[in-house]
Amino acid sequence: MPKITIVGLGLIGTSVGLALKRYARQEKLGEQLQVAGYDVDLRRAQLARSRGAVDSTTWTIEEAVEGTALVILAVPVMTTEGLFRTLAECLPDGSAITDTASTKSRVMAWARDILSPRGLSFVGGHPMAGATAGPEAASEALFDNCAYCLTPAPDASPDAVGLVHAFVRALGAKPLFIDPDEHDSYVAAVSHLPFVMSTALMNLVAASGGWMDLQKLAASGFRDTSRLASGDPTMYRDVCLTNREAITHWIDRYLAEMEHFRQLIATGQGDALLEAFQRAKVAREQWLRGEHPAEAKPPTTGLAQLLLGEGWMRRHGTMRQEGGKR
Amino acid sequence: MPKITIVGLGLIGTSVGLALKRYARQEKLGEQLQVAGYDVDLRRAQLARSRGAVDSTTWTIEEAVEGTALVILAVPVMTTEGLFRTLAECLPDGSAITDTASTKSRVMAWARDILSPRGLSFVGGHPMAGATAGPEAASEALFDNCAYCLTPAPDASPDAVGLVHAFVRALGAKPLFIDPDEHDSYVAAVSHLPFVMSTALMNLVAASGGWMDLQKLAASGFRDTSRLASGDPTMYRDVCLTNREAITHWIDRYLAEMEHFRQLIATGQGDALLEAFQRAKVAREQWLRGEHPAEAKPPTTGLAQLLLGEGWMRRHGTMRQEGGKR
Repeated sequence: MPKITIVGLGLIGTSVGLALKRYARQEKLGEQLQVAGYDVDLRRAQLARSRGAVDSTTWTIEEAVEGTALVILAVPVMTTEGLFRTLAECLPDGSAITDTASTKSRVMAWARDILSPRGLSFVGGHPMAGATAGPEAASEALFDNCAYCLTPAPDASPDAVGLVHAFVRALGAKPLFIDPDEHDSYVAAVSHLPFVMSTALMNLVAASGGWMDLQKLAASGFRDTSRLASGDPTMYRDVCLTNREAITHWIDRYLAEMEHFRQLIATGQGDALLEAFQRAKVAREQWLRGEHPAEAKPPTTGLAQLLLGEGWMRRHGTMRQEGGKR
Repeated sequence: MPKITIVGLGLIGTSVGLALKRYARQEKLGEQLQVAGYDVDLRRAQLARSRGAVDSTTWTIEEAVEGTALVILAVPVMTTEGLFRTLAECLPDGSAITDTASTKSRVMAWARDILSPRGLSFVGGHPMAGATAGPEAASEALFDNCAYCLTPAPDASPDAVGLVHAFVRALGAKPLFIDPDEHDSYVAAVSHLPFVMSTALMNLVAASGGWMDLQKLAASGFRDTSRLASGDPTMYRDVCLTNREAITHWIDRYLAEMEHFRQLIATGQGDALLEAFQRAKVAREQWLRGEHPAEAKPPTTGLAQLLLGEGWMRRHGTMRQEGGKR
């Protein structure tokens, strides 16, 4: 019976399990698809199981991945290297592994050094879904229509790439093949820099002598701008440690932009300020309206077909027209 | 028949009208409270009237304020000075005026120079309610439980202060008396700086060569951090022009904080980053849990009582227990 294993049952891991279960219901797979889970934190593992995100949890990672078709790591970046070493010991040649870490270059280097020599196929993954809440916020719909970056290792087997691609579509997400370095630079701009901005703002005002009074005036604008400061500190520390160059590059460009605004404000240049504010408003509205089209490349074989084979699909009458309907 | 006049029928002005109408229904005032509106943009004026935010709109501001008990200005800051001059010409001695502008020091100076010599009582006001959407987003509940800053002119009559205080409570907001300079410094930190941050981020990434690809990866974190960039450009230009010192002060402190983070990231100081990220998360959670208690000072006489007198109230059986129930 096909089995998928999720390692790490926080917000992302639990949501992956719930989304796979939804997919299994939609495809009428019944008990045909087994989802195994593992987390070092037993409370989390139990919570994921009680929510129906996983069918089973085990005491060891070795048991969890035994006979599995696909291993999904949903852990902080810096935990990945150690888990790769464990997986390299216990997975059979040809196994497929993916992850969900927020940075990809470092992870791909670890995969090259640790997984490739053992014949394991790694396909890096990063769902662009909100990740500031705890596992309680896990949802089967977390990945619906979100861009899901995929960075296959150069030596990953086509079968493994196809399997992970089908897995991503099964979650309801939009696969987007991307170069790992490009990925890291892009997310530094639209995710890591905003996190540092939020955190710097929060620490700045909270450390201010007037904070007791100040906070009474903080309204929805402050709430939104500071939201990322509520993100998982460990996850973001790991992000910063594994994406230093790209993040500092974008911080530098951002500081220059802020200096520019400071200058316009200090010298009271109303027309230039108005023009810059209008430009930002228009750019944001264009972005909000945008389609953010994700690549919809082949292979488009469904996860159920790949895991269960065409025969099973035909018997259960769930063959679907494939090709970009999601 | 008591009349209140709203000048400027955008998001704030229209919401003020809707909230006053809700109050009138709650207090069973019937037609006893007239709300007049004025906007240079006839389309806006008509929209506010069709939504029931105002009972009447007029061709001139003079007609709108004739015989009014209270004038509320809901316009961009830089428009205020000219309107003060118009009101100084046409309002009788002793009239009460308030505003809703995002900065207060400059407005108070204009009031001192233009309104005080004519014996007009000005009580500055600033509702800490979301203001990034257009008039379509106006709502009778916009001010519910929001902090509403009040900065009475030193020579404002106690009656005028009491009337504006009651008006604010009638909107459902929490009055908060504050010094104008203090106000401007506080909102520079929790509102104007976040706006500049958002706008700088938006312009930075949108001008980047990779924006077409970058934007596919921009998710909820980017959406929230950039939200203020969708704010009204004219309003924020005026904010920057009338609050230069406070905003540049906070930008400087913010730049120093960002430089600090840049240094920690560039040198890979994981422990210090983790500590700073944890501190921000805790501070934000404390703020979110906080009561943000607003002052609940006397006078606590209701708007209906002040406008209609005790006799009317007693006849209609709507006398209420006063004292901080809102």
